[in-house]
Amino acid sequence: MSENEKTYFERLAERCDAIGSSLCIGLDPDPERLPTHLGKDAEAIYKFCVEIVEATADYAAAFKPNIAFFEAIGVEGWHVLDQVLKAVPDEVPVIIDAKRGDIGSTAQKYAVSIFDHLGGDAVTVNPYMGLDSVQPFLEFPGKGAYILCLTSNPTSLDFQMHHDLYLRVARKVVEWNGEGNCGMVVGATRPQFLASIQAVAPNIPLLIPGLGAQGGDLEATLKAAPGRPAHHLLFNVSRSVLYASREEDFGRQARIAARYYHEMIRDARKKATG
Amino acid sequence: MSENEKTYFERLAERCDAIGSSLCIGLDPDPERLPTHLGKDAEAIYKFCVEIVEATADYAAAFKPNIAFFEAIGVEGWHVLDQVLKAVPDEVPVIIDAKRGDIGSTAQKYAVSIFDHLGGDAVTVNPYMGLDSVQPFLEFPGKGAYILCLTSNPTSLDFQMHHDLYLRVARKVVEWNGEGNCGMVVGATRPQFLASIQAVAPNIPLLIPGLGAQGGDLEATLKAAPGRPAHHLLFNVSRSVLYASREEDFGRQARIAARYYHEMIRDARKKATG
Repeated sequence: MSENEKTYFERLAERCDAIGSSLCIGLDPDPERLPTHLGKDAEAIYKFCVEIVEATADYAAAFKPNIAFFEAIGVEGWHVLDQVLKAVPDEVPVIIDAKRGDIGSTAQKYAVSIFDHLGGDAVTVNPYMGLDSVQPFLEFPGKGAYILCLTSNPTSLDFQMHHDLYLRVARKVVEWNGEGNCGMVVGATRPQFLASIQAVAPNIPLLIPGLGAQGGDLEATLKAAPGRPAHHLLFNVSRSVLYASREEDFGRQARIAARYYHEMIRDARKKATG
Repeated sequence: MSENEKTYFERLAERCDAIGSSLCIGLDPDPERLPTHLGKDAEAIYKFCVEIVEATADYAAAFKPNIAFFEAIGVEGWHVLDQVLKAVPDEVPVIIDAKRGDIGSTAQKYAVSIFDHLGGDAVTVNPYMGLDSVQPFLEFPGKGAYILCLTSNPTSLDFQMHHDLYLRVARKVVEWNGEGNCGMVVGATRPQFLASIQAVAPNIPLLIPGLGAQGGDLEATLKAAPGRPAHHLLFNVSRSVLYASREEDFGRQARIAARYYHEMIRDARKKATG
């Protein structure tokens, strides 16, 4: 998280080039799913996350902790998250999955929390309230913001497909991207809509959740967004890496799972680009 | 926050009836705007909030802390918020302004954080990701969720007016309200659209930000949503109460400001209902 003269996406591109793939590893520690020997308390979550980070960092283009899982620990959750982030190697960017959105003066407070206090390199942001809820996140030099466009969950169509709202969001993000620090979240579970997003916003990097447990389609996603550099198609996997084993060897098993997805993404990209 | 056999909206109705008005006081503590003698650190924010709560509780139908301002303190922010909430009298409901929204399994973690750990009575939720991002907040007995519909900020029209998205949200909230625990956020800065919301969702209680600093229109709002009980039109004021004075008498000045809005809402309701 040094080298502040570079943009977030330049640093992400360097990381993807260095490791030859674009796997993002989601840190969503659920006490009910931790290795049984660790227990379920704040200390267990801390130990679990640090071992996962250390075991999988070689295959991580980025790490993406979701704040909800740390808030659910209780008031000490933010302290745990802060400590976990210290274990992430400098060369691996951190995306804070926060999905925040509020009026401008309040969004600015969230941005301070995520970028200044936690030291996140990028953040996920909810667009429902419009530009002034996103703008404060775009005013931090060297940071990035992934704006929710078309999400991977079953009911994402309730509103995102309302008269193609997701495409209106994509068009707006293109307008907002004057500093080159905007990305978008587009789920791998919806490849049939990605071609339209690609047509509207071909230069906005995508964070793509939904591989693994959520059943997203890697090849269809790559086919719908051809010709993009690796860091433009950052594929997130959380549960399938984190919970590869509940035994004492969970770190080693998570590493094997991370390598599996790392290579799957790399090989699928090679195949897609001929 | 006891009496768990009652619903959130029943408790809110009792509070509004008891004090004869429906002012919600927003707790958005900004270090740059605190009384100068307090300083700007976590301890200052704690002291400020507790004095504001104690000075204004008589006129508060509810308190609404916005989590962003506590997260912006740093990792101890959640601890400060937790401590501030202990100062709120049991008979005054607490709405945690969090505007959270994520896939179901993650939203469930946010709900645990807000209802179980912080002990909030209600929460604000962002609908962009659809029902499964809202559902976990509706599964806590005795709690309530205000879903963002039409917000008070300048750019709320970027997406909320896209083919009347805000009305689609309002219709969906009516569908989701089987347990009677859904409310909606509708800004007082947009009274011209409130009549349509009233037509679609006449029985969904509204949390109405934007009075005071944001310049919302109280009388036009009451006129557009006639015949509703007080707790269905909960008007939030934050900055105009919190920052009534930066001197040592800030508590007394905040109390005067709270009484002013309390009476303004009460009198405008009387006038509107004849």
